[in-house]
Amino acid sequence: MIRVSLIGTGNVASHLAKAFLDARDVELVAVYGRSLEKLDALELRTSTRKITQLDEIPECDVVVISISDDKIAEVSAAIPRGNYIITHTAGSIPCEVLDDHDVYGSFYPLQTFSKSLEMRYDNIPICLTANTQSGLKQLEQLARAISKDVRLLTDEQRAQVHLSAVLVNNLLNHIIYLAEDRLDQNDIKADILHPLIKQTIIKLEDMSAYDAQTGPARRDDMSVVTRHLEKLQGTPDLQEIYKLLSASITKTYNT
Amino acid sequence: MIRVSLIGTGNVASHLAKAFLDARDVELVAVYGRSLEKLDALELRTSTRKITQLDEIPECDVVVISISDDKIAEVSAAIPRGNYIITHTAGSIPCEVLDDHDVYGSFYPLQTFSKSLEMRYDNIPICLTANTQSGLKQLEQLARAISKDVRLLTDEQRAQVHLSAVLVNNLLNHIIYLAEDRLDQNDIKADILHPLIKQTIIKLEDMSAYDAQTGPARRDDMSVVTRHLEKLQGTPDLQEIYKLLSASITKTYNT
Repeated sequence: MIRVSLIGTGNVASHLAKAFLDARDVELVAVYGRSLEKLDALELRTSTRKITQLDEIPECDVVVISISDDKIAEVSAAIPRGNYIITHTAGSIPCEVLDDHDVYGSFYPLQTFSKSLEMRYDNIPICLTANTQSGLKQLEQLARAISKDVRLLTDEQRAQVHLSAVLVNNLLNHIIYLAEDRLDQNDIKADILHPLIKQTIIKLEDMSAYDAQTGPARRDDMSVVTRHLEKLQGTPDLQEIYKLLSASITKTYNT
Repeated sequence: MIRVSLIGTGNVASHLAKAFLDARDVELVAVYGRSLEKLDALELRTSTRKITQLDEIPECDVVVISISDDKIAEVSAAIPRGNYIITHTAGSIPCEVLDDHDVYGSFYPLQTFSKSLEMRYDNIPICLTANTQSGLKQLEQLARAISKDVRLLTDEQRAQVHLSAVLVNNLLNHIIYLAEDRLDQNDIKADILHPLIKQTIIKLEDMSAYDAQTGPARRDDMSVVTRHLEKLQGTPDLQEIYKLLSASITKTYNT
């Protein structure tokens, strides 16, 4: 049984709390929040202590800090030293920010979380880093208790994963928004795109994104690309995005 | 029973042939290809004639031209006039390209097709345009025989749909490629991104892309954006794409 204290009550923290509570080999001994109100919203069990002071963290094996990036150093410094490994869940913050403590690392679940959405946790990749072998072992035990996909990464690799995640989650979602917004403005119901978007992703189960590429830029069909760029004259930002991505596709396949 | 002749043996044509063959109320009377070899690869039934001359098109209700954009006008002109409506399956080509014929229109299935992938056709949106009411009725009958999602669009609307489809299929796929390529170059297995990509899309069943947006640019967290842009210095194309899309996100939510 591995004992965990969780620091935070936000999006990622609330999903982690659920995952830890559901895991057979994990005991969520405490959750820290700035107010009892926020802690009460988490639907914890009575066996988990709700604490609002960092020095109330009970004896445990792992402390997981899951708060906004810019608060991690400050909160870590305020946590009393103890026989636990201190970790954070931030993609782009090096573990050294936790080096007030002897044993520290990263426990980074690579997923997009919404408070309202139910999710399965067991296929979410958990990326681990630790400054000691014994610390890493404990993190591995914790990660494997909630997921089948556990990966050991350096700080630099985790930062690359986070960057890539921003590309395929945030930037990709924005492109979908821009496309839907465009349809909206032309009195076309945006759900027309949904089957295509799904198939675009399903295809990647069978082939690499490199092989899956189709479309005018892939074929170097400049007449369609030019026609589209003309249509986009009223929305110069989107026009520039379309132009750049098309040029990048053409370069990838035709040079 | 609606009788169809299909012109073409490529990607889209081969999927349409399958869909027409599987539809109860459709009779695929003929398929035209430039060679018998290509026609033989389609796995047609004996009831469908394989023709290699356009003047061999038998009596039918709808002719569907599914070939590359730049050949449509030429092929249409070579098709004898008859008691059928002539259509093409191109997203960005106006129907007037078929106006050698009295009754013409567009039969545009909005999906990404790969020859090797099995697909369900009944939820693929079929976009229809026609220059006469009776022509439109026949197209509707044909479209409803293979799909539950049939939409009547103008040429201009179809062109907007095609443009949006390029955004959410081609450009989106390329972003995934760029992200995976980046991981590859940092010795990280690219499949780490798959659960995230899937969840990004699943989320859109419950909320709009506008509401689903998260990430540093959404929060106007310039420290992460700047850190990522620094990391991307070695790949200026991707750096520019990241910068533009992030600026567009920030503009969408923070002005």
